[in-house]
Parts: sequence; C-alpha cells; structure tokens
Amino acid sequence: MLSLDKVFNAQSVLKSIIRETNLVRAYGIAPECELYLKPENLQITGSFKVRGSAYKIAMLSNDEKERGVIACSAGNHAQGVALAATKNGIKSLICLPDTAPISKVEATKGYGADVCLVEGCYDDAYKKALELKDSMGYTFVHPFDDENVIAGQGTIALEVLNELDDVDAIVVPIGGGGLISGIAYTVKQIRPNVKVYGVQVSGAPSMFNSVNAGEICCLDSVSTIADGIAVKQPGENTYALVRQYVDGIALVSDDEVASAILSLIEKQKMIAEGAGAAAVAAVMFDKFGLKGQKVAAIVSGGNIDVTSLSRVIDRGLLKSGRSSSLLIELIDKPGQLKEISRIIADCGGNVTGVHYEKGNTESVNGCFLRIEMETRDFVHVELITRSLRSEGFKLL
Amino acid sequence: MLSLDKVFNAQSVLKSIIRETNLVRAYGIAPECELYLKPENLQITGSFKVRGSAYKIAMLSNDEKERGVIACSAGNHAQGVALAATKNGIKSLICLPDTAPISKVEATKGYGADVCLVEGCYDDAYKKALELKDSMGYTFVHPFDDENVIAGQGTIALEVLNELDDVDAIVVPIGGGGLISGIAYTVKQIRPNVKVYGVQVSGAPSMFNSVNAGEICCLDSVSTIADGIAVKQPGENTYALVRQYVDGIALVSDDEVASAILSLIEKQKMIAEGAGAAAVAAVMFDKFGLKGQKVAAIVSGGNIDVTSLSRVIDRGLLKSGRSSSLLIELIDKPGQLKEISRIIADCGGNVTGVHYEKGNTESVNGCFLRIEMETRDFVHVELITRSLRSEGFKLL
Repeated sequence: MLSLDKVFNAQSVLKSIIRETNLVRAYGIAPECELYLKPENLQITGSFKVRGSAYKIAMLSNDEKERGVIACSAGNHAQGVALAATKNGIKSLICLPDTAPISKVEATKGYGADVCLVEGCYDDAYKKALELKDSMGYTFVHPFDDENVIAGQGTIALEVLNELDDVDAIVVPIGGGGLISGIAYTVKQIRPNVKVYGVQVSGAPSMFNSVNAGEICCLDSVSTIADGIAVKQPGENTYALVRQYVDGIALVSDDEVASAILSLIEKQKMIAEGAGAAAVAAVMFDKFGLKGQKVAAIVSGGNIDVTSLSRVIDRGLLKSGRSSSLLIELIDKPGQLKEISRIIADCGGNVTGVHYEKGNTESVNGCFLRIEMETRDFVHVELITRSLRSEGFKLL
Repeated sequence: MLSLDKVFNAQSVLKSIIRETNLVRAYGIAPECELYLKPENLQITGSFKVRGSAYKIAMLSNDEKERGVIACSAGNHAQGVALAATKNGIKSLICLPDTAPISKVEATKGYGADVCLVEGCYDDAYKKALELKDSMGYTFVHPFDDENVIAGQGTIALEVLNELDDVDAIVVPIGGGGLISGIAYTVKQIRPNVKVYGVQVSGAPSMFNSVNAGEICCLDSVSTIADGIAVKQPGENTYALVRQYVDGIALVSDDEVASAILSLIEKQKMIAEGAGAAAVAAVMFDKFGLKGQKVAAIVSGGNIDVTSLSRVIDRGLLKSGRSSSLLIELIDKPGQLKEISRIIADCGGNVTGVHYEKGNTESVNGCFLRIEMETRDFVHVELITRSLRSEGFKLL
C-alpha cells in the first residue's frame, strides 16, 4: 500500500543516490504567473526516473538483490534502473528492442547494466524481459505501475512543498502515470489545497482518454516528439491514483511542446526533452487558467538527442516567424534573383538558401524560386512578402 | 588600485543582486580530469558581466549616480549594466550600433535601460557614447578595463575556491580580459599554487598575441562564433594583470568551441554561448595538459540566439559524423535512386535530403545526386560510402 510514510522513507533512502534539484524561478516563459521549474533534467541520468527505480531496488529483500533486476525500456527508465542497481551493488539486465538508438544502448551500459538486444519492437523486448524474469528469477522493475516506484517519484512533491511552501499548483507530465501519481498522492496528504494538474500530448492521450471514459483505455498507436510519455495504456494503480487525486488533465500539441523546448533554451539556458517540456508548454499556453498564481512545473527530463533537438529548434524558428521560406513564381529571365535579393536585403531579411525549380508554372518559360531566410518575426515576414508583391512578384 | 579587500567588498555588495551559481560536476566531457563547471550562463542576465557592472555602479558617488551611467555594447555587458543600474535605482543609457539584432535591443530595454541606436558599427556607437558621456555627465562603464569591474568579476574566484578548496586549475575565457584579470588576481593572492589558464579563439587572439609580443597588439579584424570574446585589443590594466598572474593562454578553434557547446547540451543539458564554451573546449581538447587534475572551467555566458545555436548543432553533428552529405555522380537512367536508397537503408543510414543536380559530369547523360543522411559516426559513414562504391557508384 502506498503511504506517506513510504514517500518519506523513500526520501531518506534516496538522499545518498540522487541530486536534490533546486527550483528555478523562470521569468519570461509565462509572464502572467509566477512560474518555478523543478529541473529533473539536471537529475543524475538526466531524468526523474532514477528516483522510483532506486527506491524500488533499495526495498528488495537480500535474496532478491542477490538475483538482480530486469527492466524493459529504451529510455530514461533503463538508465535509472541501471544506475540504481549499480549504486546498490546489484546486477541489472535491460531488454531493449534491437532498433534502439546506439546512444541509448551505450548510455545504459555506461551506467553498469547488461543489455539484452531483442529482435523486434518494444513489445517483443517486454515479452523477453518477462520470460527472463521467470526463468532466471530476476525482479522486474516496472516503469510506473508499482507502489515503491510511485513512492520514489513522490519525493519530488516533498522537495517542491519544502522549497515553495505557498505554491498554488503543480503541473506534471503524464506518460504511464507514475510521476503524477506519486506527486498528487503526496501533495494531497500534506496540502490538499494545492492543485495538481497533469499534461499529456495530443498524440498519446492514454490517461486523458481513460479518465474521461471512466475506464482504462488502450491506444492503438502513439505519435509524438515527446517519446518519454508516449505510453499506450496507463497502469491500474496509476489510473486509480490519478482519478482520485489529480485536479485535471490537459493536452498539448507537439508544436506547443516544441515552443516550450525553445523557450527553455532561450530563457533558461536549459535543455528539456519533449516529455520534459510538456508541463511547461501547458503553463505557457495557459491550459489550466493559472494566471496570477504561483506554479511549479516539473521538467521531468532532458535526454533529447541533438538530431531531434536540431529539428525542434528549426520547427520552433519556423513557427515563430524567425525563419521562413518563400516560393516565388518567376518568368525565367535574367536579373530576377538580383531584384529579389535587393528587396529582401532592404527589408533586413537574411537569405540562407536559394533553390531554382522547374515546374508547372503558368508560362512555359517560368520557374519557381524557393528562398529561405532568417527573419525577426511574422510581422517582418509579412513586410518582406508585401514588398515583393508590390514590386510585381508572384508569391505562392 | 585593485586589492583583495575590494574583491571581498564586491562579494558582499553583490550578494543582494546576483545569483550564487554553484559548481556543477561534469561527467563525460573531459573524462581524464575531474571537471567542474562554474555556470555563469545561469547567472541573471545570462552572463557573469553583471558582477563587474553592478559593483562598479554600486561604488559610484551619489552625484555620479544621480547623473546616470552610459555604456556601449550589443551584448552581455549592456544587459549587465542595464540590470545593475535598474537595481540601484539609477538611469542607464546604452549605445548600440543600429545593426544590432532586435532581440538584443529588446533584452537591454527589458532590463530597464534607455537605448540609443547609432548609425554604423560598434566603433561609431562607442564614439557616440563617449560624446554623450562628456556632454551629459554620465559615467562610462567600461566592459573590462576598470578596476572595480575587474574586482566584481574576481568574486567568481572567491566562490570557486570556497566550493572546491582543492582545485588544481581554473580555466577562463578571455575577451578584453576583465574576467580572467579578476579571477587570476584573486586566486594568486589567496592560493598562489592554483593555476589560472586563459583561453581565446583563434579568430580573435588579441591577448594571446599581446602577451607573446610583450606589448599590447591590436587586431585588424576578428572572426569567430564566440562573439562575446571577439575583442580587437586588450585593456591596459587587464593586459598587465594577465601578464603578471596568468599561467598560460591557449587558442581554440571555432570547431572546438562548437563541439564544446554540443557536449554541454548533451552531457549537462545546458546552453552556453560560444565564449561561454571556450574554456570547456580547451579542457576537452587538452590544451593545458590537465589530465588527472581537479579543474574548474568558467562557463561565462549562455546568450546565444537559437539561429546560431541551430547552426552550431548542425556543424557539430557534421563534424562528429552524426550527419553527412554524399555527392554521387550518376548515369541518368531510371532506378538509380532506388538502388542507392536500398544500400543506405541496409547500412542503417537515415536519408534526410535528396537533390538532383545537372552539372559537368563525365557523360552527357550524367547528373549529380546529393544525399543528406543522419548517421551514427564516421565509421558508419565510411561503411555506407564503401558499400556504395562496391556496388559501382562513383562518389565525389
């Protein structure tokens, strides 16, 4: 049974393993509320997950510890289990689909785990982990639906309440629901008036749908940049705890998450992964009406690979008008590019790419010109397009 | 006169204005030494500069405070002066060239300064600032060559020595030299055995050249992604202090700086600007032979605009083999792209861009195909190019 004692016990057990991540006051991200970030992206392993795994592992019997633990994950949970096991001096085996990125496999090994690559997808790796658990006697460490794991995540709430004792609301990303279950349970035992809100992405709304339907629903598929919370089905324990203790769940879009990642970079000099930025996105785009309130948003993790980060930044620049792309239909005659370059330069745009394309233009001598530019904002883009149009160019 | 008393005095004056940025143990960036980061990118205004400006301003006479301060900068110094003046309840005017990015102008205004946009370049803005200083009676806040500014920057050394009392070496970026002067002076008064090393970028080696020449040299031009330390000429005070107290200066390339920015993102979930990553780059690429030592690197600032950040990441990916671009000469016949796609997919590469280009090929029917891919590392790129070659494709 989950209990407040357990959460306090987890806090004292975790003291020697985890970092206490101090709240950071965030200016400029959501100016209408007093926003604090709980930066679990700066936690060891780059995510909060190590809290739950480490407490779960610490509570195992000596016999269980002797036999070791097994888990199935390609992400933050794997690294949390690996590190927690290593710190407790026990063996860990992580099953991963063989399609997992090399970097994740290496990171998991780096924390001391043995890795078992399983042909196929996540579900295949999960099946293999259960088989090995049974045949080898490992203890399976569930990523979220386990009361000790939940108690470990609940220690975040103790830290937030301790540091910010007049907080009005805590906003938490939801994947399987382990993090929010621990936080909401703990908060409501200690300070029932503090609101706890959950955030999912619209491409993976499993808990949102389940709570609305009044029963656990399973999604056929999930699709989001927030891979850390792309979970098809909530746990039974976490579903029950969320229903009982959480004050509301909202959805954010991938574009809102990308904007939040970009804001965290620009305003806080901080890297969050998609899941890690989801709660911040919900506050930025005011999904819970928290104006004027003192709000803590959990930045759950920072493990985003730079290739994805680069894409997120590019998309964020595009979505905020700081980069843009024009398609101009030209009559194929000399001097056109010169003229267009002049107009853009006069407007203060910075050309970063030019492509000529033949295509289905009106005139047989026509062609398309694609111009990529760095711009200041949408007003600036509008100024440039208006200037081009007023000088007779046809923009598509 | 600079004195240790002044630095201690600065520390107590700054207490209510700045954040104390705690050292962060950095794993995996320079595995052969015990590296700590002093994260002044997380300082208010996103850079250490506020320390020097705030102390300088606090030490002004009441009469000087009444008349206000003036500075010339398009970067971190402007924001430092603006915030420090506002916190002291005095007026500040910042002269900027009218080519300064809107975002910098807005940030400076946001900290409470009046902004004077001057037609031309930095030098024009600087001249204007001196004119206004004389005609209006403002006090000019120099970005580095001022003993109170230097004393303010020296407070960083007090914090580092206090937190890490057995540090072996402190590595510091150098622009005009204010930061390293304050740190080196302070360190050598308190703990003369601790080494202090300076880092410049090879595109702006003004202090490096000056120290080597034994006299202050002025560069004709500077060119680097580390715009915060792109300074043509050291100050007289800073030059003298660096000569006396600094144990060595090394140069890093822009590519090394870009790699350091990328490592800070990946390993520390932290954004540094070019200048802010220069000291880390020097440790990563072992410019001072610090293996086995306890090293503190000053991450001086985090104010990099996301457009530049996006370019740095792209370049970092390219330089580490995690993205790559192939140019293949084709005979212009059907099925070639299909074949190439298959080979790349079989090797585990992820195609992100394809461009056909007509050009000066050997055969009149030939064309060029440019393929952009996400790859794992250079070994992976090599595997793909070897596979393509072995199936008869001609790579350029």
